[in-house]
Amino acid sequence: MELDFSKLDGLLPAVIQDYATGRVLMVGFMNDEAFRKTVESGFATFYSRSRNKLWMKGESSGHRLAVKEITTDCDQDSVLVRVEALGPGVCHNGYHSCFYRRLDNGQWVESEARTYDPAAVYGGKP
Amino acid sequence: MELDFSKLDGLLPAVIQDYATGRVLMVGFMNDEAFRKTVESGFATFYSRSRNKLWMKGESSGHRLAVKEITTDCDQDSVLVRVEALGPGVCHNGYHSCFYRRLDNGQWVESEARTYDPAAVYGGKP
Repeated sequence: MELDFSKLDGLLPAVIQDYATGRVLMVGFMNDEAFRKTVESGFATFYSRSRNKLWMKGESSGHRLAVKEITTDCDQDSVLVRVEALGPGVCHNGYHSCFYRRLDNGQWVESEARTYDPAAVYGGKP
Repeated sequence: MELDFSKLDGLLPAVIQDYATGRVLMVGFMNDEAFRKTVESGFATFYSRSRNKLWMKGESSGHRLAVKEITTDCDQDSVLVRVEALGPGVCHNGYHSCFYRRLDNGQWVESEARTYDPAAVYGGKP
């Protein structure tokens, strides 16, 4: 399972895609340990750059990402994880996907509605 | 068009997705200039970390990526670019997508056939 973590100081980008719909849900970063945890647990696990620790997505919200397939690219310096997303949304801001803002004439505009109330899930914490 | 390039020393990951099929084709990195060129030209343009310069994907192969839609995520530190991929394949190794290796019992295995001969397109150069 040799991946190239050297280009980003021990990390690589992990693209999370909905297995059923093909929608890209989020991009996170994994270090070697996070990648191994993802494979072993069957749930996407990342390395938080802001908190400097591993986090299994959904550990507080319950909105976990059940791994269906993992692929890597030609340079083995990124991974694509196709998942079944548990719960109403992946984004901690209340949206189905983190990619809810579209570029429109030079401005980022919200292009969809929230699918859940983040305050009810996260208790007001970001 | 404020994006957060600060977390990766001036870069952010750009996920390239086929607009028609939803397939994730590659992950590249953009700096602010590459992002602006992408928007202005309508063709995905990256910053090469190995060559330390901008490159428009397809400038040598002709396999350019025509931008259909750009979205950004909640933290505005990554972008998702949905494209029409011109030519038979995006990967310089001859595959339709760079993500042609699937994790299977702890081993990366090629999960699809080449769609073109990279030697004929790139003249044997990687």
